[in-house]
Amino acid sequence: MGLRLAARVSVRLVSVRLVSGHDGHRPQTLRVPPRWAPPPTCRSTSSARTTTPASLNPTAFLDAAIDEAELGLAEGGIPIGAVLVHQGKILGRGHNRRVQQGSVVLHGEMDALERAGRQRASVYRECTLYTTLSPCAMCSGTILLYGIPHVVIGENRTFQGEEELLRSRGVNVEVLQDERCIALMTRFIAAQPGLWAEDIGE
Amino acid sequence: MGLRLAARVSVRLVSVRLVSGHDGHRPQTLRVPPRWAPPPTCRSTSSARTTTPASLNPTAFLDAAIDEAELGLAEGGIPIGAVLVHQGKILGRGHNRRVQQGSVVLHGEMDALERAGRQRASVYRECTLYTTLSPCAMCSGTILLYGIPHVVIGENRTFQGEEELLRSRGVNVEVLQDERCIALMTRFIAAQPGLWAEDIGE
Repeated sequence: MGLRLAARVSVRLVSVRLVSGHDGHRPQTLRVPPRWAPPPTCRSTSSARTTTPASLNPTAFLDAAIDEAELGLAEGGIPIGAVLVHQGKILGRGHNRRVQQGSVVLHGEMDALERAGRQRASVYRECTLYTTLSPCAMCSGTILLYGIPHVVIGENRTFQGEEELLRSRGVNVEVLQDERCIALMTRFIAAQPGLWAEDIGE
Repeated sequence: MGLRLAARVSVRLVSVRLVSGHDGHRPQTLRVPPRWAPPPTCRSTSSARTTTPASLNPTAFLDAAIDEAELGLAEGGIPIGAVLVHQGKILGRGHNRRVQQGSVVLHGEMDALERAGRQRASVYRECTLYTTLSPCAMCSGTILLYGIPHVVIGENRTFQGEEELLRSRGVNVEVLQDERCIALMTRFIAAQPGLWAEDIGE
């Protein structure tokens, strides 16, 4: 197992602001924050995969979520991925960032929503969220906040999230028990039980 | 109302990695992500205010959350702030970042948790979260995920979150009806009803 040291230096514009005060109806802040700046042209992990043809069948969206989970694993992270789909197109795709970014809020579902960016309520209400694993209380609460009506879950054998809460609020919840999703999490939990426990607050 | 143009350029180290593969028990990734890098020494908005003396009375923690809300307002954002407190010390403080960072997940409570960084479950279970406004479904779900047992809410007159869900799961929820919190949100909602609706998924 060889160790590799990679160092990279970037020079980038941190902020360009037009400040007009905060009492107006539309703040003119165009600030690009230094701490959490999305890619300038695309919020997806891979710009080539931002959108998906409307004809893509639903299985392909779970495949995209699994791709994200595997990408997270390859980064040394927790292998959970998700995609937010609106009218047959992926608005945002993401994966768990606990290890990679030290994030306690960017579960796969949250990352997908974050990368989809600010959307109108009417858009969320026509969306389906595909996730490789049953959504925890945080992700389920976020689904409720934004009124996402349909959630497709890769599996709930390795972790049972807040599916009943979602159903009790009218969300259509489907669980596919996909063998690839089960295998990803089974191997990960066996390999890194402490990290997994941290991710679910245990 | 004058316009001000501010441009700033930063040079920083984006990543230094020791890569040993992702199949081991402890990934040796020390990566500093370019997209979302916390301050190197402190996750708080203001390093001078990272910790608070253990003797500080609880009102001071709400004051700190209000400071965060006012800071967010001054940035052109939504004036909701929060602090996560453990054994009399603020672990993390934050405010809503929808406008400032285009974030759909960084409500004030989420930002405070994110800036507190990765904590053990045993720490969260001794924490109190102070927030200027009743927590929405997303933030309430996050409180449940991490098992935070005590939430102190500035007010719930302008927005009623998921307090009953929290109480039904054993969380101690206090609502202070603080006049400063009510005034902040009342003015903000009147000035920017569209932005507020977006923030609560309406």
